[in-house]
Amino acid sequence: MTQFRDLDALRTACLDLPAGSDSAASAVLARQAILTKPAGSLGRLEDLAVWLARWQGRPMPRLDRVDVLVFAGNHGVTGQGVSPYPASVTAQMVANFARGGAAINQIAGVAGAVLRVIPLELERPTEDFTAVPAMDQAAFLHAVSVGFEAVPAGSDLLCLGEMGIGNTTAAAAMAAGLFGGGGQRWAGRGTGIDDAGLARKAGVIDAALERHAGCFGDPLLIAMALGGRELAAILGATLAARLSGIPVMLDGFVCTASAAPLARLRPDALDHAMLAHLSAEAGHRALAEALGLRPLLDFGMRLGEGSAATLVVPLLRAAVACHAGMATFAEAAVDNRA
Amino acid sequence: MTQFRDLDALRTACLDLPAGSDSAASAVLARQAILTKPAGSLGRLEDLAVWLARWQGRPMPRLDRVDVLVFAGNHGVTGQGVSPYPASVTAQMVANFARGGAAINQIAGVAGAVLRVIPLELERPTEDFTAVPAMDQAAFLHAVSVGFEAVPAGSDLLCLGEMGIGNTTAAAAMAAGLFGGGGQRWAGRGTGIDDAGLARKAGVIDAALERHAGCFGDPLLIAMALGGRELAAILGATLAARLSGIPVMLDGFVCTASAAPLARLRPDALDHAMLAHLSAEAGHRALAEALGLRPLLDFGMRLGEGSAATLVVPLLRAAVACHAGMATFAEAAVDNRA
Repeated sequence: MTQFRDLDALRTACLDLPAGSDSAASAVLARQAILTKPAGSLGRLEDLAVWLARWQGRPMPRLDRVDVLVFAGNHGVTGQGVSPYPASVTAQMVANFARGGAAINQIAGVAGAVLRVIPLELERPTEDFTAVPAMDQAAFLHAVSVGFEAVPAGSDLLCLGEMGIGNTTAAAAMAAGLFGGGGQRWAGRGTGIDDAGLARKAGVIDAALERHAGCFGDPLLIAMALGGRELAAILGATLAARLSGIPVMLDGFVCTASAAPLARLRPDALDHAMLAHLSAEAGHRALAEALGLRPLLDFGMRLGEGSAATLVVPLLRAAVACHAGMATFAEAAVDNRA
Repeated sequence: MTQFRDLDALRTACLDLPAGSDSAASAVLARQAILTKPAGSLGRLEDLAVWLARWQGRPMPRLDRVDVLVFAGNHGVTGQGVSPYPASVTAQMVANFARGGAAINQIAGVAGAVLRVIPLELERPTEDFTAVPAMDQAAFLHAVSVGFEAVPAGSDLLCLGEMGIGNTTAAAAMAAGLFGGGGQRWAGRGTGIDDAGLARKAGVIDAALERHAGCFGDPLLIAMALGGRELAAILGATLAARLSGIPVMLDGFVCTASAAPLARLRPDALDHAMLAHLSAEAGHRALAEALGLRPLLDFGMRLGEGSAATLVVPLLRAAVACHAGMATFAEAAVDNRA
């Protein structure tokens, strides 16, 4: 039972996207002009208020309910030695999330966000995509649907993240398939592989690219052949959020690569998404630039788990609080500029 | 009644500074190595935990009490037409702070910080420093002392900010006196002056530099001749925090320039201070680089009020929460790397 009958149904949904609300965005701009501060002096905080209003469709943006969805999956390509950690760590970290012991648990607490972790058939890794597609159509559509259906209807902001040993290899392969270039351009150290491992990882990606070059004309086939279940779920969640009027905060390299096929299908498909952070993972800068996403932070993080997407939530809360709570020049009887 | 009898007493205090705690910093590094994440993958969040521990002198850093001090002052140099806003706005904004209508009120609320605004003789602007020193020795030492004494003993983090029409001119003049270069290098648009005003502002700074070149060998005389009461108070507060084991978060251009004389007296004097943000004010990048301060954010803000210093507090809370709350590999039974 999946949300999308076949790839064409998913493709149709990806192409038929609602626009944001110009009137909500205009209302925010008009109010910003009369709040007690020099024009534009809150910089990106002002942009964030406009962006939230546009995609929430509300002239006064709010962050009453912030959700973090972390999808987890396992990858057949780990058999090729692309990670210094064993694949068993994915399930162990999911258990750590459940007990509250991971970084994302602490960061979600500070952010006042609701964290939900969704493991996707961890006992059934995707296929090794150097040999065959990572997923068949049914598995791919199922994972997309899990992500699509996981988005809470009443959310004011959706932060997306992932966990999956081996998934920076999948993300790099997807980035290469979508934007060109080979393993050397897109492979990074992931959880911390050494030089020999990095060269091996680049070679694995090149092998996968050669195997699946025939599908490079179709971004969804790229996600199916080179991605993974948690990456597909992020694609589904990003799409669902757009259809439901929920702004999305993207995390790092894997999360960005997961959503990227949407932008290849329709250039404005990620306008409702913001990038939290420029990851230390090698390929992220090029990927963010290819997508026109300007990160909010550059903290040298490379953890995933939605850690950066959730870390920036209080910055958005400050943007919303300033917009809603500041006095106007007239209310405060402050002289405006001469 | 001031904390410092004369300039020499202040200078002596500025030169006799305690070091941070190496053992607290080492304890944080040791724990970070066993928490359930790839080594170093929390990037700057890990650095922040080490920095807080070092300067709090605690192996487990905390942010139970965060204080924001905003100092306000008026400037005789506003008579030269260096700001698009009238000097009356300083007192009006102080009233706005008191009623909770300014940006800093909203941001402090999100940060869970205690905000205190301290106006410094707003009815007595400093002298026009194109003609005479901004302050005499008594006025300067009094302002430094107000800042010094305002630092709450039990604080875990001190965020500093300012409000004062005309004070980007004072800050630019101080930066020029401390680091060389003229008005054109250091003058920015402040609250939003036009091209003609910017040229006038640079000229005013150059006139002040010519008038006070004789004192450029002494950072404290520079602060007295070219600064302002709120800038002097920030210097005093930054010094007091160092002596009390309280890390300091600096805000934007004016705040950074205010603390800069300390670093000219002793190169490691700002090691307990972090820079929150790279301001859009023109001279801030050069000033931050001259001081070796690497900003946490680059949000294009240029408001002052401690807005950026307070905005980043939740990022530090996340760093502290991750450090204290994450499970170790052993506790979580997660396999560490092979």
